[in-house]
Amino acid sequence: MVGLDYGTNSVRCLIVRVQDGAEAGSHISVYAHGEEGVILDGREPNLARQHPADYLTGAEAAVRGALAAARAHDREFRPEAIIGLGVDATGSTPLPVDAQGRALAEAATFAQDPNAMAWLWKDHTATEEALAITERAAAEHPEYLRKCGGVYSSEWFWAKIWHCAKVAPKVMGAATSWIEYADWIPAVLTGTEARPMRGICAAGHKAMYHGSWGGYPAEDFLGRLDPALGPLRRGLGMVKAVTVDQAVGGLTAEWAQRLGLPAGIPVAAGAFDAHLGAVGSGIAPGTLVKILGTSTCDMMIAPLVPELPDIPGICGIVPGSIVPGCYGLEAGQSAVGDIFNWWVQKIAPQGATHEALAEEAGRLRPGESGLLALDWNNGNRTVLVDQRLTGLLLGQTLATRPAEVYRALIEATAFGGRIIMERFEEYGVKVERVVNCGGIAEKSPLVMQIYADVTRRPMQLSRLAQTCALGAAIAAAVVAGAYADVPAAQRAMTGVKSLAYQPEPEAMRVYERLYGLYRCLHDSFGLGRPTEDLSGVMKQLLSLRDATRQGRS
Amino acid sequence: MVGLDYGTNSVRCLIVRVQDGAEAGSHISVYAHGEEGVILDGREPNLARQHPADYLTGAEAAVRGALAAARAHDREFRPEAIIGLGVDATGSTPLPVDAQGRALAEAATFAQDPNAMAWLWKDHTATEEALAITERAAAEHPEYLRKCGGVYSSEWFWAKIWHCAKVAPKVMGAATSWIEYADWIPAVLTGTEARPMRGICAAGHKAMYHGSWGGYPAEDFLGRLDPALGPLRRGLGMVKAVTVDQAVGGLTAEWAQRLGLPAGIPVAAGAFDAHLGAVGSGIAPGTLVKILGTSTCDMMIAPLVPELPDIPGICGIVPGSIVPGCYGLEAGQSAVGDIFNWWVQKIAPQGATHEALAEEAGRLRPGESGLLALDWNNGNRTVLVDQRLTGLLLGQTLATRPAEVYRALIEATAFGGRIIMERFEEYGVKVERVVNCGGIAEKSPLVMQIYADVTRRPMQLSRLAQTCALGAAIAAAVVAGAYADVPAAQRAMTGVKSLAYQPEPEAMRVYERLYGLYRCLHDSFGLGRPTEDLSGVMKQLLSLRDATRQGRS
Repeated sequence: MVGLDYGTNSVRCLIVRVQDGAEAGSHISVYAHGEEGVILDGREPNLARQHPADYLTGAEAAVRGALAAARAHDREFRPEAIIGLGVDATGSTPLPVDAQGRALAEAATFAQDPNAMAWLWKDHTATEEALAITERAAAEHPEYLRKCGGVYSSEWFWAKIWHCAKVAPKVMGAATSWIEYADWIPAVLTGTEARPMRGICAAGHKAMYHGSWGGYPAEDFLGRLDPALGPLRRGLGMVKAVTVDQAVGGLTAEWAQRLGLPAGIPVAAGAFDAHLGAVGSGIAPGTLVKILGTSTCDMMIAPLVPELPDIPGICGIVPGSIVPGCYGLEAGQSAVGDIFNWWVQKIAPQGATHEALAEEAGRLRPGESGLLALDWNNGNRTVLVDQRLTGLLLGQTLATRPAEVYRALIEATAFGGRIIMERFEEYGVKVERVVNCGGIAEKSPLVMQIYADVTRRPMQLSRLAQTCALGAAIAAAVVAGAYADVPAAQRAMTGVKSLAYQPEPEAMRVYERLYGLYRCLHDSFGLGRPTEDLSGVMKQLLSLRDATRQGRS
Repeated sequence: MVGLDYGTNSVRCLIVRVQDGAEAGSHISVYAHGEEGVILDGREPNLARQHPADYLTGAEAAVRGALAAARAHDREFRPEAIIGLGVDATGSTPLPVDAQGRALAEAATFAQDPNAMAWLWKDHTATEEALAITERAAAEHPEYLRKCGGVYSSEWFWAKIWHCAKVAPKVMGAATSWIEYADWIPAVLTGTEARPMRGICAAGHKAMYHGSWGGYPAEDFLGRLDPALGPLRRGLGMVKAVTVDQAVGGLTAEWAQRLGLPAGIPVAAGAFDAHLGAVGSGIAPGTLVKILGTSTCDMMIAPLVPELPDIPGICGIVPGSIVPGCYGLEAGQSAVGDIFNWWVQKIAPQGATHEALAEEAGRLRPGESGLLALDWNNGNRTVLVDQRLTGLLLGQTLATRPAEVYRALIEATAFGGRIIMERFEEYGVKVERVVNCGGIAEKSPLVMQIYADVTRRPMQLSRLAQTCALGAAIAAAVVAGAYADVPAAQRAMTGVKSLAYQPEPEAMRVYERLYGLYRCLHDSFGLGRPTEDLSGVMKQLLSLRDATRQGRS
């Protein structure tokens, strides 16, 4: 199976054995345009775009590289043995296309125009439009908001397209439609781009798609936001979004030749990287998958019956968005690794490294620093759904050291993660186990141990590091007919490492107290509802610190 | 005139001309014992002592050095022209003495025992005793607390002596009495140490001395705290504490020889460094003197008529403690320069200096960083009188830079200073002008400008940097009969620099909003009484930041 995993800076191709998910070969190709693949604008720090040409040349380089790696690893390996291909990509990353489904930026007229390129997930130019969509939906269609945590984001489909209509009417006029590139790549590879299938993962909540109101939002709702949005909605028609166990077509002869793969093999419907990462990590009812990187995704699934209530602050609840036949639930923290990077790269003493700070921070006991932080340096995605929040550090004295702050920042992200878990459970979605994947899960035992201690649960690690690409390969295995459905493929092709981080009783005890104080700050600054008198917070931290230092904690 | 200024690490001698306070010569002598003059204990971080022998050898070195400097500067200078000597010292710094008034640590038995030395002002070993004194006084003699801001401190006279009685009964048993070294030095120099005079500055509030209850606290009150305190109180008798315009005696022949000064010249009653620093800065009714160093002292005086109410949180209100015939009012911030030093030395990138951070921070406009801090890294002396408070930093994003935090910390100390000013004014003590002195006032234009902008007042600077020693010299001038009283001597011998920092309208406007948010955090974490909904704080900071960056602030 081939999994194509489109990240923010590069595309990875992973080839795995269909029987057990073992890696046969992989290769990464870095995008050619922009800074590490991202096109920026010095005058507009919120802008982040990608050139769609990079997606196509990147696919070719990544697949050919992975095939070469597989051959190098096993002389018996033959490309003809590949029976299916799956795709995951970042999102919401929509791009404008013409009537033939070709990216506008592929035409010479628009080749240099960032507004005609793909609007990368982290592009934040559409803040005002997102606000206006939220307000209008709250007044006219509150049901639209209930599936996306109550607030429509500037990172999402309609906000970005509307912003384009305002700032680049020529681009908007030339675009017959817009499409998530998670959908566009499978369409291009199968020659179906003129009438592409749309994946439920990308459509659900981020494009406000839901079966209960007939798919995308009503044309009159969009048309009253901006006249340019009406025709676009009409063009999308009554399309039924598909799940990743459905093929969008067979690989065209042209693309088979470019990639070096057999023509006609089925290509699965695309999905977002985190969602297929959850599949590749073995997500199942009761299993929370945490994808830990610069930010996190915290994913769960739940059976369609009994029907799930809307869960406030959980930013996506979409049937079939992760595993077909189950609700996909999507939550996350706006910054995790990014906060640690900020401290190390921007603030801490020159020469400080993650390794050195983690080593020193690892020798501290819970509570010993007297510090407490909020993990909001990039806002709060779940459960507050509020970008207009910032970081907070409390408890510093004249003796506070950088490694103590580093540990406090890790703890803050752990507390933030626990709030997400508790929100799931409050609404009946039980968290029975936690599987972690992503760079931080692989690289930082300190983070994993603190997460175990704070959340009072073992932290398991996904067996294969490249879970997003593996998830795409699992989708491919299902559309190729190797397994009856996604769960069957997951059972065969995924697993966890034998090592799991176990919570330690003494640390759990201290963190229980610290979590109560975190919650108090969280609710005070996030909701204006302090859970206790704030004048006790500093004193409690000092008492805990003193007791810990004197071995009486 | 000679002023002897005993600091934490060294003693300075300043010789000034009696006509106008011009410096004739000065010299600093560093104490011989301990780390930079402070004797520490690795097992007890709260302990800080000084060896009294250092005070005596230090006086000799400092005076002889200053005389040499004066001669080098002016060949006409003759020591015989010196007509008086004054002394200031840190405090509360009590030491145990025998029946002859000799320091116990001068005897071989106790020469190495830190408990027999001087208990330096910043010694915090007596936290429990201070708490117990506060509780007992609140129950039995609430009037004792009303003159010291409502809370008795571990830094003060009775708490330290009681702690000594508990941990070092041998020392306590050998001590006939205890004395502030601000009183002990003048007594030794005049041979009156067996029956020393006590200065009102050191006695008032820190030793709970007040005329309205007959001086020191009642013997039965102290005796019930600890039986060892009763006899000590009895020995102190009905002593009437004196002001700095009174001589304690004439310089003995022996000390005249050791110092190289004329025998018999009058020696003024001693006082604490900050109090005589205020005198040397020209304190008068309506003038706030800020002594800016690692911490601050914020001093005012007010006429004895009409009687002043007790002012909550102002840690000392004592008739005559600064200028005879006026109330002395003492407030301050527990850390100012220490907070800036913490950021530069412990946290910020290697190679960062105050100069470099101040240069970058100085280019920021008020509100531009989106940051807000509390200045409590070492607790809060005024107006909360609470050591169990800690620092707080809020508003950081992933882009926050060290210089932005540096500026936010300066602003936090400015806001803290404004709260003190407002507390004075709320109780009828009007602040008509502000005179700054101390290292930070001399060295940091950025700090001074921010203080002007935040407090909406011009910041003046004391003409002579060494205001504490100058204040001691002014006391000497009065006891020598050169002036009728302290105000007359101040008018002749003190002044401010022609440069004053003026508040800027635009900065004032922004800081008015930031101060409101500071106040909200201050009251929330300090008193448990938020002045507004905390959920708006981060958003208001972001709005202010965005408006400032877009030039719309």
